[in-house]
Amino acid sequence: MRMYDLILKKRNGGSLEKQEIYDMIAAYTRGEVPDYQMSAMMMAIYFQGMNQEETLHLTMAMANSGDMLDLSDIQGIKVDKHSTGGVGDKTSLALTPMVAACGIPVAKMSGRGLGHTGGTIDKLESFKGFHTDITTDHFIRQVNRIGIAIMGQTKELAPADKKLYALRDVTATVDNMSLIASSIMSKKLAAGADAIVLDVKTGSGAFMKKQEDAFLLAREMVRIGNGANRRTIAVVSDMDQPLGRNVGNALEVKEAIETLQGKGPEDFVELCLTLGTQMLLASDSKLTELQARDRLKQVIADGSALRKLAEFVKAQGGDESAVYEPEKLPTASIEESIPSPQEGYVSRITCDEVGICCLILGGGRETKDSVIDLSVGMKLQKKVGDYVKKGESLAVLYGNDPEKILAAKRRFIAAYEFSTKPVPKLQLVKGIIS
Amino acid sequence: MRMYDLILKKRNGGSLEKQEIYDMIAAYTRGEVPDYQMSAMMMAIYFQGMNQEETLHLTMAMANSGDMLDLSDIQGIKVDKHSTGGVGDKTSLALTPMVAACGIPVAKMSGRGLGHTGGTIDKLESFKGFHTDITTDHFIRQVNRIGIAIMGQTKELAPADKKLYALRDVTATVDNMSLIASSIMSKKLAAGADAIVLDVKTGSGAFMKKQEDAFLLAREMVRIGNGANRRTIAVVSDMDQPLGRNVGNALEVKEAIETLQGKGPEDFVELCLTLGTQMLLASDSKLTELQARDRLKQVIADGSALRKLAEFVKAQGGDESAVYEPEKLPTASIEESIPSPQEGYVSRITCDEVGICCLILGGGRETKDSVIDLSVGMKLQKKVGDYVKKGESLAVLYGNDPEKILAAKRRFIAAYEFSTKPVPKLQLVKGIIS
Repeated sequence: MRMYDLILKKRNGGSLEKQEIYDMIAAYTRGEVPDYQMSAMMMAIYFQGMNQEETLHLTMAMANSGDMLDLSDIQGIKVDKHSTGGVGDKTSLALTPMVAACGIPVAKMSGRGLGHTGGTIDKLESFKGFHTDITTDHFIRQVNRIGIAIMGQTKELAPADKKLYALRDVTATVDNMSLIASSIMSKKLAAGADAIVLDVKTGSGAFMKKQEDAFLLAREMVRIGNGANRRTIAVVSDMDQPLGRNVGNALEVKEAIETLQGKGPEDFVELCLTLGTQMLLASDSKLTELQARDRLKQVIADGSALRKLAEFVKAQGGDESAVYEPEKLPTASIEESIPSPQEGYVSRITCDEVGICCLILGGGRETKDSVIDLSVGMKLQKKVGDYVKKGESLAVLYGNDPEKILAAKRRFIAAYEFSTKPVPKLQLVKGIIS
Repeated sequence: MRMYDLILKKRNGGSLEKQEIYDMIAAYTRGEVPDYQMSAMMMAIYFQGMNQEETLHLTMAMANSGDMLDLSDIQGIKVDKHSTGGVGDKTSLALTPMVAACGIPVAKMSGRGLGHTGGTIDKLESFKGFHTDITTDHFIRQVNRIGIAIMGQTKELAPADKKLYALRDVTATVDNMSLIASSIMSKKLAAGADAIVLDVKTGSGAFMKKQEDAFLLAREMVRIGNGANRRTIAVVSDMDQPLGRNVGNALEVKEAIETLQGKGPEDFVELCLTLGTQMLLASDSKLTELQARDRLKQVIADGSALRKLAEFVKAQGGDESAVYEPEKLPTASIEESIPSPQEGYVSRITCDEVGICCLILGGGRETKDSVIDLSVGMKLQKKVGDYVKKGESLAVLYGNDPEKILAAKRRFIAAYEFSTKPVPKLQLVKGIIS
């Protein structure tokens, strides 16, 4: 393989062969292909695209660039779930105990948050003592024992993707559908599950601002997953306003607990039931959709999902009593209501702005080394379609620093838009692709 | 300036501002912009192009990235000449003494050859003792004294271009018209002449295989030159067969001497007169084209151009007696005729193949560090349109190694194509752009 020839071929609109892609990724991972050739290749791919075969080969080559997790010691069909990320997206916190309570083994690798979207591990660390740095052996044993475990992503998982993503990030070659899809899917394939349920977000708080792009990405990832012999289903869901009501690490854990207590906000509950149904169907082909949905409702109603969360938190060193006494979770010292500046129907909430408000309050990472304040965030009281009087509270901000609260408040108010005419609620689930 | 933003802007089809281009080139030259970002930028430019302003700014920024030669101490209007390169292109060897003999100061920077096209300095080194590593002071003094000097390109001339070209060469981003034009012109502008006459080659032995591309490049370079306030004229000329009859360093010097003796081959003489006329017109606006052409013919007829060559060779340490006794120039030990494999009209000579034959014989550089055998090459006896009988000699090969001659011979024969019907001669000058 001569890297120059591959760049030229792609630049001229040609398709790369399977072996060429594998050789290129292997050589790049070993440091034998320099970054300056790879970035030229990425830009050529940005302009010329990759066909379905190329995209699958790239994904597989990246998945195979490091360790491939072997989950065969876990009984049953393992279903992984992945969200492309958004504001207030605490889905995994409620969904994984629900699914585990239904008897589906949950063996999940999660990441930390960067920028205005939070990470599952950060949120779980709201439970005092909780940690995810467990060995693969421990991880597998825990799943076999209690049906659920979450571990942090190891460095050895798809190192090619890690290196390539860092390069794309500084060379303006991130936003290409094939490259985005292969980046996500390479990690999912390496993480070893038998089936994958994807939650592809769309809207102002998502990476995919446009719904058509979200569907393109969803279809691309489903094609890759199925091409790699993993049953893959994608749900395209709304991220044009924050999911549920709570944004911020401990606040989102509280909302997940409320949801498992049967008191969750309508949109969030609906998303958990939709994704959970797909996970159950992927694991057990004899189930009907209605049966799957009923089982999920059942594990909430009978408290078994909540108990599963406590069991899981305890197994990974966390204080499980906080599951039953959420006031033990980190709590901010200052609460401040945001009065509506006008009367009318909420017509729009610029979603990533809400995420940035949480970041301003200290609840996110601006750089990889930032320390997160788990207690801060906000509870939205008015969402799109809701009617509000002037001065009525739009939300409550939670913080520990008056200056930060002031800055976040200004920005939060500006994220809301109002209409004098009634505004329809946003459709949560845009479609399901399998 | 954030390089990321500039890449994104260009990738999305935007135009870079003058200051952005200057900052980018300055930072890249200092090593502050990494190669992997610059190669992504080059690929984005490959796909999105640059407009005329951007191309001019890029050229000026690269010209200004190192030393700008100041030729103001030389009396008169200094005219530089540049060829995009080809096989048998010994034009500078004959043309510069002709122009100098007409009283136009020739202060020229030249390069060495790489691949199948030779360099003027390599050819001049056929004169024993000739060297080009002279100081700028010496260079200027020599031009003022005898009207002509040639120096090697200094490292400090347009270092940004040097760095950028090396990067483009390994990232498949060479063949973009704006980038090619700016690369050539940045060095010409830095070399300090008042006017520039360009010889843009087209055909199988040229970088621009297609005539339309040669015209595009010619127009782009003329626009840049004029935009930089240097009178610039481009001649588009044929390189679909070797220029003249001789190919190879000392052999080309011999043909240049013959030309200055009034015995040059028709096509080569015509090209020298065409380019020389443009150089004289650029230097003296009161001349007519006919007057300029007559003066050039005159300096050949009266021997003053040949004497100027001898004077120039002597001034730079070379054995000028070889100008009058060319048998003193390096001569190969073996001469071998190539008999025509068939009867007919020569319909095509794949020009770069002839260059490669010269390389095989040892007359060119395969890498930067190759040592050249100045004596080898070939003398073409049949060119496109000529009639040849089977077994009649197509050319004579000159070499010092029987094995290399055998390999070159096979390849040389394969470069010729024949037709049973008469074939028109190739048009030498395709057009002049100013």
